[in-house]
Amino acid sequence: MIYADYNGSAPLCTSVKDYLFKRLEKGPFANPNAIHYLGSKTLMGMENARAVCAKVLGADFDQVIFNSGATEGISTVFHSILKNEVNKKIIIISGIEHSAIINTANYYASERGFEVKVLPVNGDGVVDLEMLKVWIGQNKKNIAMISIMAANNETGVIQPYKEINSLCVDNGIPFLCDTTQFIGKTPFNFKESNFDYAVCSGHKLGALTGTGILLVKNPEGLCPLIIGGGQEKGHRGGTQNYLGNETLAVALNTLNEGFVKLEELSKKRNEFESKMKAAFPEVVILGENAPRLATTTYISYPGIHGQAVQIELESQDIFVTTSSACSDNMPVTSKVLKAMGVADDVGRGVVRISLCMNSPLEYYDQLTVALTSAYAKLTKVKSF
Amino acid sequence: MIYADYNGSAPLCTSVKDYLFKRLEKGPFANPNAIHYLGSKTLMGMENARAVCAKVLGADFDQVIFNSGATEGISTVFHSILKNEVNKKIIIISGIEHSAIINTANYYASERGFEVKVLPVNGDGVVDLEMLKVWIGQNKKNIAMISIMAANNETGVIQPYKEINSLCVDNGIPFLCDTTQFIGKTPFNFKESNFDYAVCSGHKLGALTGTGILLVKNPEGLCPLIIGGGQEKGHRGGTQNYLGNETLAVALNTLNEGFVKLEELSKKRNEFESKMKAAFPEVVILGENAPRLATTTYISYPGIHGQAVQIELESQDIFVTTSSACSDNMPVTSKVLKAMGVADDVGRGVVRISLCMNSPLEYYDQLTVALTSAYAKLTKVKSF
Repeated sequence: MIYADYNGSAPLCTSVKDYLFKRLEKGPFANPNAIHYLGSKTLMGMENARAVCAKVLGADFDQVIFNSGATEGISTVFHSILKNEVNKKIIIISGIEHSAIINTANYYASERGFEVKVLPVNGDGVVDLEMLKVWIGQNKKNIAMISIMAANNETGVIQPYKEINSLCVDNGIPFLCDTTQFIGKTPFNFKESNFDYAVCSGHKLGALTGTGILLVKNPEGLCPLIIGGGQEKGHRGGTQNYLGNETLAVALNTLNEGFVKLEELSKKRNEFESKMKAAFPEVVILGENAPRLATTTYISYPGIHGQAVQIELESQDIFVTTSSACSDNMPVTSKVLKAMGVADDVGRGVVRISLCMNSPLEYYDQLTVALTSAYAKLTKVKSF
Repeated sequence: MIYADYNGSAPLCTSVKDYLFKRLEKGPFANPNAIHYLGSKTLMGMENARAVCAKVLGADFDQVIFNSGATEGISTVFHSILKNEVNKKIIIISGIEHSAIINTANYYASERGFEVKVLPVNGDGVVDLEMLKVWIGQNKKNIAMISIMAANNETGVIQPYKEINSLCVDNGIPFLCDTTQFIGKTPFNFKESNFDYAVCSGHKLGALTGTGILLVKNPEGLCPLIIGGGQEKGHRGGTQNYLGNETLAVALNTLNEGFVKLEELSKKRNEFESKMKAAFPEVVILGENAPRLATTTYISYPGIHGQAVQIELESQDIFVTTSSACSDNMPVTSKVLKAMGVADDVGRGVVRISLCMNSPLEYYDQLTVALTSAYAKLTKVKSF
């Protein structure tokens, strides 16, 4: 089996499994806020996990807020920035953001009267930095926040986040960088990034599902979305998910050790794409000319339904998706591809192949054979 | 070892551990929203878990919203009811609510101008139903919501939730019943309760930490706190915590089978309390004359610090707390006890002994011996 849907969700990584087998066997299980020994021990384990996460992510200990995942982090950041914002009315996002960002921004538009400006992207799926500069120049005093992702979940295209962040810092605009697809797939250092806010989800990293981290430059300015009893220094209520948080530390540590393989993986991925294009000149690699995550290939054979390719690969025990999991069930061109100006025959033909750093390089050889066979079969019954 | 802090947090129950050992070994791990086979299988497992939870809790399938815990549930309910409320300005809570309720209500008071009315309780920690009737009679058209717990986390005292719910239904007032300490400790049927909203936390039930359920009578009226990509039918965004949600089903099933032991456990608990009072006539059992959860004893020896008792018991490998985990570190009379009008010498002397339905009855014999020895030792050095 080749699991090639890491951008959708990562299976529990081996180190996390091994950790949990021991951890569940021996305990302790207790409320980390309890004064007894078991409580203190549980708390210490969790805070040790926070220290590990902080170190791997290049953040201060206090900048790591544990939560239930990136979506909660996103909702918390929007809430924190916009709750009491009455003067600045513009939210800038891009046309390729995840629906968690789009839907949250639209919520503040419809409920609170903010204006959402959607930054266009070029044909390779990179946001238009020049346009952003113009927008900031024109509306500087009226921009409440900017939220643009570090790497796209469908194409894997890496955005000019450094330049965007500099623009935000220079103009005093709060910046949320959606790093959900970035963290764990390429090295990341929160302090060096200088982002105000970054988010990640444990299930994308091989940690337990329902876990996540919100990274905050200035935690004292944070306004909790989930209020509760003062946990996470008042930033996020509710008894802490200590087991889940511990697995975040284990997973991040494992990923951190794997980054050495990135170059080789990227090379192999490029070879795979070249072979596919050589065999099928019609094939399109989305975002091909932009910097991309080493582990993502978004490939289309115009005229063949992506879902047909997905099913064909599945029959060979290879699991890919057609776009993002959230919109997977709609056999239409995804919002991301529409924003990139991709034609419908290409857009409906895509499958996303996303591996992880620890995937064997041979997977790409197997993928070459399988996808070649799928395309060869399906070109005989092209449906549109 | 006797773990006697179930009201703070339950250790992972054996059935959940066994389930996880198999589950983590064999998978599947995938995004439940992905179209491939692994995604569908993951989704089916999770929806099967929802069906089990619904059945055990006496709710419709669609009334079960998975989330990260009771605190998130509480914040979601307040948000749903109060977001667009401009006419009704009163929130009624009681003086013995968990800080998650108190802090959330106070947030809406300070940020949105709601008035929080705090219902008094009697000396046994039962809310004043007559006063509630008067308040409703006087302010009927101005009450935005009522939030009163089913059972108190410190005393275990069961509140007249049926009567409160009837008053709310009769007067068209949205009612959130904080059932965090109730569910899993005594039989509960959501439909029969007729509550608008109820909440629970997995970590109180022996499920994985960071899990929970929000039960909603009319889910279509719910407004998501965490917006995201439309998961949980749009009621709660973020990739679902399928592993955690599965453990909720396993834990609830196990607890459901344990309710037969309640009567015996309650009898044994009462014997334990009688023995302690016989040996030490100064001893006070908080909430003694009210209906209580079978597994909770909140006991005070006036003049002896609760923390000294807790440490003494801990030296005998018995783990109790002094009040709720959230306020455990403050050696003062808890808010709950203050609301009950408990004097400081009693309030500072309490320890909370909370077991679960599956605790061996013999634990109470061991607790009798241990607590007798602790009191005997500490009465020689009474500190206040």
